[in-house]
This record gives sequence, C-alpha cells and structure tokens, in this order.
Amino acid sequence: MSFKKIETQDLAFFHKILAENRVLVDQENIDRCASDETEDFVFPPEVVLQPETTDEISQVLAYCNTHHIAVTPRGAGTGLSGGALPVFGGVCLDMRRMNHILDIDTDNFQVTTEPGVITEALQNAVIEKGLFYPVDPSSRGSCFIGGNVAENSGGPRAVKYGVVKDSVLNLEVVLPDGSVIWTGANTLKNATGYNLTQLLTGSEGTLAVITRIVLKLVPYPKENLLILVPFYSASDACAAVNRIFLAGFTPSALEFMERDALTCAMNYYQSNTIAIPDDIQAHLLIEVDGNNKEVLFGEIEGISEVLSAFRTGEVLFAESHEQKQELWKLRRIVGEAVKNGSIYKEEDTVVPRSRLPELLQTVKAVGNKYGFKSVCYGHAGDGNLHVNIVKGDLDDKTWEEELPTAIREIFHYVHSVKGTISGEHGIGYVQRPYMDIVFNDIQLGLMREIKKVFDPNGILNPGKVF
Amino acid sequence: MSFKKIETQDLAFFHKILAENRVLVDQENIDRCASDETEDFVFPPEVVLQPETTDEISQVLAYCNTHHIAVTPRGAGTGLSGGALPVFGGVCLDMRRMNHILDIDTDNFQVTTEPGVITEALQNAVIEKGLFYPVDPSSRGSCFIGGNVAENSGGPRAVKYGVVKDSVLNLEVVLPDGSVIWTGANTLKNATGYNLTQLLTGSEGTLAVITRIVLKLVPYPKENLLILVPFYSASDACAAVNRIFLAGFTPSALEFMERDALTCAMNYYQSNTIAIPDDIQAHLLIEVDGNNKEVLFGEIEGISEVLSAFRTGEVLFAESHEQKQELWKLRRIVGEAVKNGSIYKEEDTVVPRSRLPELLQTVKAVGNKYGFKSVCYGHAGDGNLHVNIVKGDLDDKTWEEELPTAIREIFHYVHSVKGTISGEHGIGYVQRPYMDIVFNDIQLGLMREIKKVFDPNGILNPGKVF
Repeated sequence: MSFKKIETQDLAFFHKILAENRVLVDQENIDRCASDETEDFVFPPEVVLQPETTDEISQVLAYCNTHHIAVTPRGAGTGLSGGALPVFGGVCLDMRRMNHILDIDTDNFQVTTEPGVITEALQNAVIEKGLFYPVDPSSRGSCFIGGNVAENSGGPRAVKYGVVKDSVLNLEVVLPDGSVIWTGANTLKNATGYNLTQLLTGSEGTLAVITRIVLKLVPYPKENLLILVPFYSASDACAAVNRIFLAGFTPSALEFMERDALTCAMNYYQSNTIAIPDDIQAHLLIEVDGNNKEVLFGEIEGISEVLSAFRTGEVLFAESHEQKQELWKLRRIVGEAVKNGSIYKEEDTVVPRSRLPELLQTVKAVGNKYGFKSVCYGHAGDGNLHVNIVKGDLDDKTWEEELPTAIREIFHYVHSVKGTISGEHGIGYVQRPYMDIVFNDIQLGLMREIKKVFDPNGILNPGKVF
Repeated sequence: MSFKKIETQDLAFFHKILAENRVLVDQENIDRCASDETEDFVFPPEVVLQPETTDEISQVLAYCNTHHIAVTPRGAGTGLSGGALPVFGGVCLDMRRMNHILDIDTDNFQVTTEPGVITEALQNAVIEKGLFYPVDPSSRGSCFIGGNVAENSGGPRAVKYGVVKDSVLNLEVVLPDGSVIWTGANTLKNATGYNLTQLLTGSEGTLAVITRIVLKLVPYPKENLLILVPFYSASDACAAVNRIFLAGFTPSALEFMERDALTCAMNYYQSNTIAIPDDIQAHLLIEVDGNNKEVLFGEIEGISEVLSAFRTGEVLFAESHEQKQELWKLRRIVGEAVKNGSIYKEEDTVVPRSRLPELLQTVKAVGNKYGFKSVCYGHAGDGNLHVNIVKGDLDDKTWEEELPTAIREIFHYVHSVKGTISGEHGIGYVQRPYMDIVFNDIQLGLMREIKKVFDPNGILNPGKVF
C-alpha cells in the first residue's frame, strides 16, 4: 500500500474546513497521536485533524479519498491492539472534540452521543437519570465511547450485560467518499435489510468513521455486593467460574486474577489493602447486582456454597462503597501495572468458559517451553483471559524470534477449542499476523471484499485487521 | 433477473447427489413449497430438494451457481414476509431433513443445531438440561430455528432476552459457490475481524445457506407469573407499557392486544375462558420470570401499582400452569385467527417504545382516511406493533390501489420517529416496495454490494429484500 504524502496544498485545504487551530502539525500533537497503549509502537501521522462536526469529517474524508491520503481515526488512544496507530502516516482524525452527549432519552432508555465522550462520563451522565450503560472497559476513565464501538469492547460487566455490540442500536457514520448514513433505527429490534450496525461495530475504523452513536440503556441496578475470593490453586479458581454459572447464578462481574496480577497492582498503587498469604495462587472478584438486597445476599450465599467445594482462603466481603472502589481500582489497574515493569505483549484469548482451566495450563506450558513468564487475568465469566507476556530477563533474540511462534501455539490451542484470538481488544495492528489461524482464505476473502465495498481506495485505517 | 429453467439433465445431477426420494417434483410438494404464511401468494418452485448434509448443499449450490439456477432456501414456511417464496421458480431448498440437535453443551450453555429443528423442540430439549433458549416466535410450534436465524425473529420474550441475533454465537454456512465456512467462534465475545455472524443473521437467505447454528443459552428460570390486564382505552394500555419500564421493571413478556385481537382469537378457538366486558378496549398480557417466587410476586405488585394510575378492569391472575398455557395459546393464535376471517395484509411496525400510543393512533387515523380496518397487537415492550389490515368489505380497487399508499403513510410516520418497517418479520417479498422509505440509495447501495460479495451471480433467494 502506498499513499500520497501530505503537502502544503493539503494543509491549506484542511485549514479551510477546520480553521487553523484544529489542523495540528506541532511535535507534541504528532507525538501524542503516534502511539496508543499498545506496546511501544511509534507511527507518527503527518497531520492531526480535530473535527467538530459530521460535515467536517465528510469533507475531510472526501478529500483524502480523492487524493489517496491515509486516514486513521483516533479515540482516546487506549487501545491494546494498535488500532489507532497511523502505520502509513497521513491524517490522524483525532475525535476528542466531538465530545457531546446529544440526548438522554429517559422515556426509551436510550442515549445518543458523539464518539469523543469518555465512557465513564457517559455512564455518569445516564446514572444521574437512573439509567445504566453497563459496558465498562478497564480504561473507562479515559477511553472514548467511539473507540469502544469501533473495537467492540467488553469489560467486567459483559458477563451479565453483554459487550458493546449488545448495546448499540444505531450509528451515524461517514463513508470514505464523504457520504453520511445512519446504519439502522432507534429500536430494540430491527429486521429491515442487512445489519449494517452490527457490521460496523467492531470494524476498527476500517469501514467508516463513526460520528453518532445510539445506545440502549437499562434501569440502573440499585444494589450490588462484591467479594474477593482467594484460591490455593489458580486452576481451581478457573474451574470454580463455570460451577457458579452451572448453579444458576449470573454475577454482574466474575473476574480472575493470578497471584502476580493482584500483587503487581498492589505494588503499583503502593496499596496494602489486602493481605495475601504466601500460598494463595489466584483470586476471583465476584459482583452481583440488582434491586433487592435480600436477593443479592441470597446469591452471594449460594455462590459461597458453590465455592466451598474448592480450597479457598478467607473471603473478603467488601463492606463499604470505598472498599468496593478500592477492589475495582486494583482490578482495573492490573494491565497497566504489569506493563509498567517490563517490555510486554498482551494477548486477549477467549474460549468457551469451561475451557478456562485448560487455557491457563496451556499458556503456562507454552511459557515453560519457550522460556517466557506471563501474568494472566481477565473476564473469566466470559472465558476471556488476558495473557500479559513479560520480557523480563529474556534475551532480545528469543523475544523477537521465538515469541511469535509461542503465541501461535497458544492461538492454535484457542482455535482448536472453538475460541478465538481476541475477545475484546480487536485485531488492529498487532494481531494481524495471526488472523490465518482462525480464518481461512475464504473467510478473509469475504472480509476483504466487504472492506472494498465501503472503502474501495483503502484509505481508512490502512494496515489494520488484514 | 432471469434464471435457467430446470431441465432433465439438472434433475439427473440432483439425483446423483441426493438420491431419488429427495428430489421432488410431485404436485403435492411443489404446491406445499409454493406458498408460506404470507397472504395468499403462490410461486411454485420447479423442483424441491431435501438435503441432509452440508456437503449435499455445497454440491447443489455450486451446480446452481455455475448454471445460474435460482435457489430459495425454505424453513417451515411460517414466514410472514414471503421470504421462502420461490418467486423465480428454480430450486426450493427444503431444509426439513436437517433436523438434528447436534450438541447441547451444558458446561458452556450452548446448543449446536441443524437449521431444520422446530424451535419449540429445541426449547424443550434444552429445558430438559435446565437451560433456556428464550426466543419464541408465536409460530414456535412449527417454525424452524434456521428460519428464525435467517429472519432474525423475535417473539414475546425478546423484551427481556433479546431477539435471535442476541443468541447466535456462530454459524456454519454454505456460500453460493459451494464453499463452507464458519462465521465466528463459540465464545460469548469476539473481536476478531468483521462480524459475519451478525451480518448473516437476518439476511433472509440471500447471502448464504445456514447449515449449523451455535446458540447461547441461559439457565432456565424456575418460576414465572402471568397476568392479563383489561383497559378501557387502547391508548392507555400502550401508555402503561412505558410506565412499567420507567418504574424499573423488566417483564419477560409485555404483550398488547386490541379488543378485536383477543375476541377474534377466542372465537377462532371457540374459547370462553375470558369474559370481556363491552367497554374494554385492549389488554396487556404481562409475564415476569426468575428463580425467586417472592421476588416475582413483589414485581407483579409493583407493576399493579404502576397500572393503578390507569383505568383498568379486573386483572386476571393466572393461577395454574394450565391457565397460563391457555392465555398464551390465545395470544399466540391472534395472527392466524385474524387472518382466518378475511383477506389481509400484516405489517410489522416498530418504534421507540414511548411512541406506541402515537403509532396506534396513526394506524387508526390512516385507516379512517383510507377506509380500512385493522387489528393491532404485538410485542409492546419492544415497541413492536403488528398491524393486521383486513380487507373485510373493502372493494378490490381500493384494496389494490390505495392500500399501498396508506401503508406508505404509516411507514413514513414510523421512520419519522426513528422506528422502522420490520421489527421481526423481515422484508422478504412483501415489504420490498417500502425499503426506500427507510433507506436511501447509499444505504441500499452498500447492501446490494454486500449481496454481490457473497452471491455475485444473484442465485440465492432472488427477488427478496431489495
């Protein structure tokens, strides 16, 4: 792929549309938009554009499409698969100024928002109206809702409430030729033509630029209870996950953390909230929510009964709002904490839930074979295990040459049990080399042709997914 | 569009693949497959093929694709938009022999099934394992799960559990060129490439033939309660729907029936279960489900409190399993009952829930203007109102010439409030003329191009959707 480089006349055109202060070529903005939260990649864009309206985006895209300039849409840059990296330079379409919540429809439990709104801000705005947008990636305090839709994000509550795709009702998007369309209707059901809404959700900015999002909301659950359960065996903790569901419980979160994950988070925060005995190997963080506290206590009791079949340490029951916040803070920071200490690669494996113990064993066995260490944690209730592979003392040669082979081995296992290589982070830039493990030429061919339907010149987020 | 007619050598080829008894040209089978439950259309196929395996379908499609023979996949023929009508003749791919449930995965709450399984049979099979497949169209006693996926069906429980698309995890499909692919993974979340699973769900047999389906299940709720609430005003009944949700309740069903809908069903069944006072204009059928009977009684109490703000008649609380069955039987038979008495057209309007009273008023106002009567009922909790327009004494000229104009008027209203023209029946054959109301040339162009990606020769279910 090759694209036209940005020249003076291109900047002049962008100035006309966006005014000077939203056409940025200063080093600080170029540097900021050259990276996201994925490893240590640096791919500087040639210019950073900050549109404020759908119409501005339409004009920018039409121009870039005609002149064959690469365009990489960027949310908050919290992605973990390199989706926002401008790997071919060109335009970074920085969505941060499209940060307005347009309408909270309390009659129909819907919110219409621009893509540059921080997910947690969106959540808080609807909570004020007694409503709940339940999808909360760990980065919710900084990520944008538009990026969440583009990557089909998940997070701890997906186990009960689903991922982003389960909340998206309708999208306004701009196609590469500048056309603006809505993908569906603002209804809870829709059997009218092909499901463009679901096709665009999770398409990682490669088909169109999302400019407005209509999300389904639910009534805000008034109560929740949270427990942290220590296990003497990580494999037991994984096995316990499935038993909880088999007993008929649907927690609103069911998170797994290896010992190292939690200790790493505590060190990073210099927190000493939790005393972890030496022989504890893993924890489950379990939340139930609803409107009836009695019922929730009953559920926690039932879950505890399930867990009594396993060797667990003393269960920590979060007594106060603050204690709940503290436990969630620790869980949410694990990724950042693990990465802080070493060069790393993060994988986002997902399997049918009952395979979780086997997946963990496979990861560790492959690690032993190739000599790498990993810290595993994630959304066990969904069968979604984040595998943070840390370089530590590994020599550069092994890291660069053998690690891809080791990762392929893990992914081949995942595929063999009908799982897949990304549960919620997306393929983006870093997982592209592994797509052949889960898709053959026919499946990839269909996807490539769909890409061509939307983006015949291939200007949108080039170098991603395929 | 024109297709090659079936000739002797084509039948000879089909005989080689399917054996003689599954290549049917007898009048009875041709007649059976010439119609579905949509109005009184008759489009006979030239041959009915009854494959038993994915491989047989693959060979049939590859042949038809090469020879440009039209292929119309057929489930149980219960569709209400004419999706299974072979409007260009050719092959009817009758899926009834692919009727095996392949695997009920009680560890992961998943079922893998062939498409020709009757939906209710599938539900019963998983209930035996303590699991629940919640999507139940009114035709569940005869419709096939494959047809449900093709049309993205709904039904009364969609309000709590979602429509088919919310349960589909993975599909095996055969493309028109005979290629066989899986669309995704058997996982609860998946951020790996474009969402082919969701693109194919609801694509009405126009992109590929579905041969295996992996569905997500949930634990079977042990208890449910059901009430029938009479209203003195249909508009009040519609308005009450939204109030129930605003008060924080999520019933497992919330069905609306105009007076005529229920009386029609009772007459059809010669049932006298319910005494309907003369001044009752509509009913809501409300179900709650869960595992804790106390909680459910509390919910019914709460809902009753909400309803006390409206003028309602005496609430019927279903005391026994039999009484529940009876009420559901009446609700499920409404469509069939209304159609039994007259030539009719059935519309499947859907709007944001709070617009329901306005939608009902619009339907009635348009009816008054053009002189037609309608019986309205449906899944009010989803904002999904079925409008059965009955011909009654209307003269043929008005029925044929003016009704389309009247329907357009209703659909324009629906679109103006961000609703759409089909909530769960699909576009199929009968709603095609109205697609321009909800989609412009750009949206339709994208869909047509996607169709070409999958089916470049246009052999699959031609004459549908577009």
